[in-house]
Amino acid sequence: MTAVLPRKELFEMPEGVIYLDGNSLGPLPKGAAARAAEVIEQEWGSELIRAWNTADWISLPKRVGDKIGQLIGAPEGSVATGDTLSIKVYQALAAALKMRPDRKVILSDSGNFPTDLYMAQGLMGTIDKGYELRTPASEDVTQAITEEVAVVMLTQVDYRSGRMHDMQAITDKAHTMGAVMIWDLAHSAGAVPVDMAGSNAEFAVGCTYKYLNGGPGAPAFIYVRPDIVETVEPALAGWMGHDAPFAMELGYRPAMSTERMRVGTPPIVQLSILEQALTAWEGVSMRDIRAASIALCDLFIAEVETRCPQLQLASPRDAASRGSQVSFAFEHGYAAMQALIDRGVIGDFRAPDIMRFGFTPLYIDADDVVSAAKIIEDVVNNDLWRDPKYQIKSRVT
Amino acid sequence: MTAVLPRKELFEMPEGVIYLDGNSLGPLPKGAAARAAEVIEQEWGSELIRAWNTADWISLPKRVGDKIGQLIGAPEGSVATGDTLSIKVYQALAAALKMRPDRKVILSDSGNFPTDLYMAQGLMGTIDKGYELRTPASEDVTQAITEEVAVVMLTQVDYRSGRMHDMQAITDKAHTMGAVMIWDLAHSAGAVPVDMAGSNAEFAVGCTYKYLNGGPGAPAFIYVRPDIVETVEPALAGWMGHDAPFAMELGYRPAMSTERMRVGTPPIVQLSILEQALTAWEGVSMRDIRAASIALCDLFIAEVETRCPQLQLASPRDAASRGSQVSFAFEHGYAAMQALIDRGVIGDFRAPDIMRFGFTPLYIDADDVVSAAKIIEDVVNNDLWRDPKYQIKSRVT
Repeated sequence: MTAVLPRKELFEMPEGVIYLDGNSLGPLPKGAAARAAEVIEQEWGSELIRAWNTADWISLPKRVGDKIGQLIGAPEGSVATGDTLSIKVYQALAAALKMRPDRKVILSDSGNFPTDLYMAQGLMGTIDKGYELRTPASEDVTQAITEEVAVVMLTQVDYRSGRMHDMQAITDKAHTMGAVMIWDLAHSAGAVPVDMAGSNAEFAVGCTYKYLNGGPGAPAFIYVRPDIVETVEPALAGWMGHDAPFAMELGYRPAMSTERMRVGTPPIVQLSILEQALTAWEGVSMRDIRAASIALCDLFIAEVETRCPQLQLASPRDAASRGSQVSFAFEHGYAAMQALIDRGVIGDFRAPDIMRFGFTPLYIDADDVVSAAKIIEDVVNNDLWRDPKYQIKSRVT
Repeated sequence: MTAVLPRKELFEMPEGVIYLDGNSLGPLPKGAAARAAEVIEQEWGSELIRAWNTADWISLPKRVGDKIGQLIGAPEGSVATGDTLSIKVYQALAAALKMRPDRKVILSDSGNFPTDLYMAQGLMGTIDKGYELRTPASEDVTQAITEEVAVVMLTQVDYRSGRMHDMQAITDKAHTMGAVMIWDLAHSAGAVPVDMAGSNAEFAVGCTYKYLNGGPGAPAFIYVRPDIVETVEPALAGWMGHDAPFAMELGYRPAMSTERMRVGTPPIVQLSILEQALTAWEGVSMRDIRAASIALCDLFIAEVETRCPQLQLASPRDAASRGSQVSFAFEHGYAAMQALIDRGVIGDFRAPDIMRFGFTPLYIDADDVVSAAKIIEDVVNNDLWRDPKYQIKSRVT
């Protein structure tokens, strides 16, 4: 039996807000504030250093990793948590390059989120052995996988357009060509069904503050395919990834599990909030989430296109190639988004002209979609975005 | 005018506890729980994604960095915060090696905290160009600085013994030999006066959950000497260190400040707790902290040596070469520490036989020291540590 969607009762949502930006920062799950207070006051405050044992902080990163694993088709023990997504990208890429020492090409695409490409550039500069980063257009990436390629590193769902790569087809092509596959699940985990084990990809990374509602700056995760984990070389060889962290040995010996991808002391408060946030997924199947997400996205496209012909759909029309967001291009998108936010419809803007709306069936339903479309119609068709106060580009995210 | 020490009223401390482990995890500052609740409920809960602007989350890492800078003699804008200390070690070391491309030796010492050495090993494996890590005994490190050495990387205060390196003398020697200097301030920041600018060292890193009371897994920091920051090459080239993170460019262009050492999305909840915790230092001079710390440590040594001749001082007797902790070697140290903790005297144990006690003048006074010494006397002289329940090695920190 699966839970009925949405589960609005599990989230704090301010009055008058239709939140279509859970793909940027998920809303506050009920219980998260209380859990944080408990960790801070009872565990840290009263137990002090003892809480590593008495409150079992020490196994918190693994507990959270296993809960995330359930949402991405990863077996128990295969997901490590901590750090930021950027750091996890670096770890995966550094380890993957070590697996193909004779190849010098990293293949990504121009639709990847910039920090993934930046981290690759930083790693290439650090190694300094003539690596090359190729970033063809998304639609050309499959044919760009050749036997020169050491690693294919892609974000499954494009952060601007919502275009979704075919994980299985690309992973298979990568493996056929002898390349290692890394998937960034930033816009996939909790958004679309993912079957990491079934895909056979070597690595996946992701963040938890979007669809997983872990809060601002919540820790990231990394998946390593279990059959290779014991040979994976950690570039970021931190003590928490050591086989015996508290033996305080001078030499690094990695843990014989995905735990070797942990680095430093875990952020206990934020991990605890995330652990609480993940309870919202109990009894929910990603298949039901996906079905609801497609229905919401299709409805939104229909409603907006009917009401506002000025907006150009910037996401795939075919649901099968789209994640859980819908983007529209509009020349005055920045100002229009400010006007929308001012009226309680919160989406976000991505340069140069993308208005981005995320759909999250845990707390968004069809009524929200229609209400949002009506407000968009008002803002766009009545030129409400022309108000000078919406022209000031002060927003940073 | 400086504040009177201690300032016990600024911290939550459980009844019956004498906390001598602030060098491992500082106690909960009053106001930190309320600040966390505000960030979670008002900022995240009500403002959602807008809080990056409306609650100024975006400048939180820099605000916190500047407050830490004041405690370590670092000018405004020279300290970046985020990630873990392990990550910051990697960043500093990778950048330092780039500054000395013709040298292949990293010099540390065998008293460094293991994760610093592990991160160096991981970096060396990643670069894979014949680097060598040397770890002589602490007392031999100065003479081991030769013209072969690219980088000297040391933790100023030894985590086990409390032995403190002479920052100025070692930095000067490193520079004379043409090496780059990195200081790990894990047991220095908030513990002893540090003059980063005066030292002329290129880099410093540190954590904030010890003497700075930022809470479990609080973010770390990195200092870069301002005159070199524009040429420092970030190995971990994350989007938050980009000159224009929200321009979403495909190529990495580092910020023209220490901000280039930021990596991914900052942990807003834990940074906010840390910001609140740092208010405990307002009006406090590190000179007064140091004077009080020396008095507490000297008193503790005298009290324990008088009462328990079985314990061997494992810290320098001379305050000038000691940080803000005192360690004693005792064959049954593990069990004895468990017995102490059971009686409210919380220190910690470091293999093989070190009982470690940290002294933190913000919330520890002479009465605490004498009371703790009496309980140590009881546990050691009356063999209370022999109770079977204290023999079980389940503690992980």
